[in-house]
Amino acid sequence: MSHAIEKFRTRARAVNSLLCIGLDSDPAKIPAVFNGNVLAFNRWIIDETAHLACAYKPNSAFYEARGAAGWRDLHETVQYIRGKYPDIFTICDAKRGDFANTNGYYAGAIFDDMGFDAITLHPYLGQEALTPFLERDDKASIILCRTSNPGARELQDLTVENVPLWAHIARTVSGWWNERENCMLVVGATYPDELRMVREIVGEMPILMPGIGAQGGDVQAAVSAGVDSHGGNLLVSASRSILYDVDPGSAARSLHAEINRYR
Amino acid sequence: MSHAIEKFRTRARAVNSLLCIGLDSDPAKIPAVFNGNVLAFNRWIIDETAHLACAYKPNSAFYEARGAAGWRDLHETVQYIRGKYPDIFTICDAKRGDFANTNGYYAGAIFDDMGFDAITLHPYLGQEALTPFLERDDKASIILCRTSNPGARELQDLTVENVPLWAHIARTVSGWWNERENCMLVVGATYPDELRMVREIVGEMPILMPGIGAQGGDVQAAVSAGVDSHGGNLLVSASRSILYDVDPGSAARSLHAEINRYR
Repeated sequence: MSHAIEKFRTRARAVNSLLCIGLDSDPAKIPAVFNGNVLAFNRWIIDETAHLACAYKPNSAFYEARGAAGWRDLHETVQYIRGKYPDIFTICDAKRGDFANTNGYYAGAIFDDMGFDAITLHPYLGQEALTPFLERDDKASIILCRTSNPGARELQDLTVENVPLWAHIARTVSGWWNERENCMLVVGATYPDELRMVREIVGEMPILMPGIGAQGGDVQAAVSAGVDSHGGNLLVSASRSILYDVDPGSAARSLHAEINRYR
Repeated sequence: MSHAIEKFRTRARAVNSLLCIGLDSDPAKIPAVFNGNVLAFNRWIIDETAHLACAYKPNSAFYEARGAAGWRDLHETVQYIRGKYPDIFTICDAKRGDFANTNGYYAGAIFDDMGFDAITLHPYLGQEALTPFLERDDKASIILCRTSNPGARELQDLTVENVPLWAHIARTVSGWWNERENCMLVVGATYPDELRMVREIVGEMPILMPGIGAQGGDVQAAVSAGVDSHGGNLLVSASRSILYDVDPGSAARSLHAEINRYR
């Protein structure tokens, strides 16, 4: 098992939490008291929620939107987590997917320079292209399988070899899991039936599940469909519903309790 | 037709060129005289090749690998092109693909802040998710269809509705093209048979074709398969074979001539 998967599982047990907080911080939306300082806001959110958090997951788009300054904030945010809360699992939600040679540069930036434990990835170019991520025994590759957006069905529901494409990808990535136990899948909370079928396919492989909170996924339906037979190996991600709550610590506590009720 | 597609076509006619130069500049590989200064190297490459170039295409991974400093180099490279050679088509080869809300941030960064004419995109989340790119009448969205990497077959050759997935995507994106004429497809030069079939499906939609040069695609086979019935609407991309030639201007001139021989 990869060091990163072990870190995720250890942390989930230690704080009895499947909660992943998406640090999708937009300077135009954070409380006025921060004067648009995303790094200060992130540190505050992290300090308010760390005791409940299994993982943090900044989405790179929110940082790239501010150019070099945003990139620095992303870097310093993950440094802050690694320094103060080294047991918390960190995911760069970058949804990358390029050629093998090029992916080596992304892996260097996100795994090595920034030190994230995991990255989200597109499957379209196949396993060979993802080698620079998948060959890492110390990290985790989180492959898009069934996304939570309204238009996900357009391609992901196409039938291939008598199953939907998302199920084919779940099977394919199950094979990768058997090689090194260093991958996970993204399956949206907004499709609990599909989530249950993915769980049947993948056994104990961890699943990252966005789509509750602002996106409208039902916590009970999604958590009960997404956990494995031991009530774990699931990361339930929420972003806006925590970040922009008037009391983020309290919002995280409520969600943490609600998730655990349905495991 | 989008302003960006018109810009590409006008430029291709003006310099009689289908050549796209990939600015995948690695400080460890550029000539020692540049002392690792990627921006200076890029400016030199651009000045040496601009009279032959229809487009420039930096891949974002090579810049992100160097953090905030790399991000600044990417920004300044495209500013340099826009200032000195405003007629040349610019593509950010970022292979992004996130949720609609998040894609809005990528579009803001790459189309608006940096001012690229086009971006490469993953199709996996469907048209709805790509709206922030596809709704832009001034820009172009370049969708991955059949990539040139060795492992491309793993998912892209799966049969859906009696055709390979890549052909289904070509048909789907053809529909998007009919809405606004603001998209293109990526089809690798290493698969000339597939390229010919995509061309039959998409009519006059422009195709971005990487895979010649270092990746081994045959120029004659690929160009003759990829051009439309008027010998155009194709962008032939080369990167390492030009950037790291001892005389990049001469390498670009040879390739430019070779491409035109087979149009």
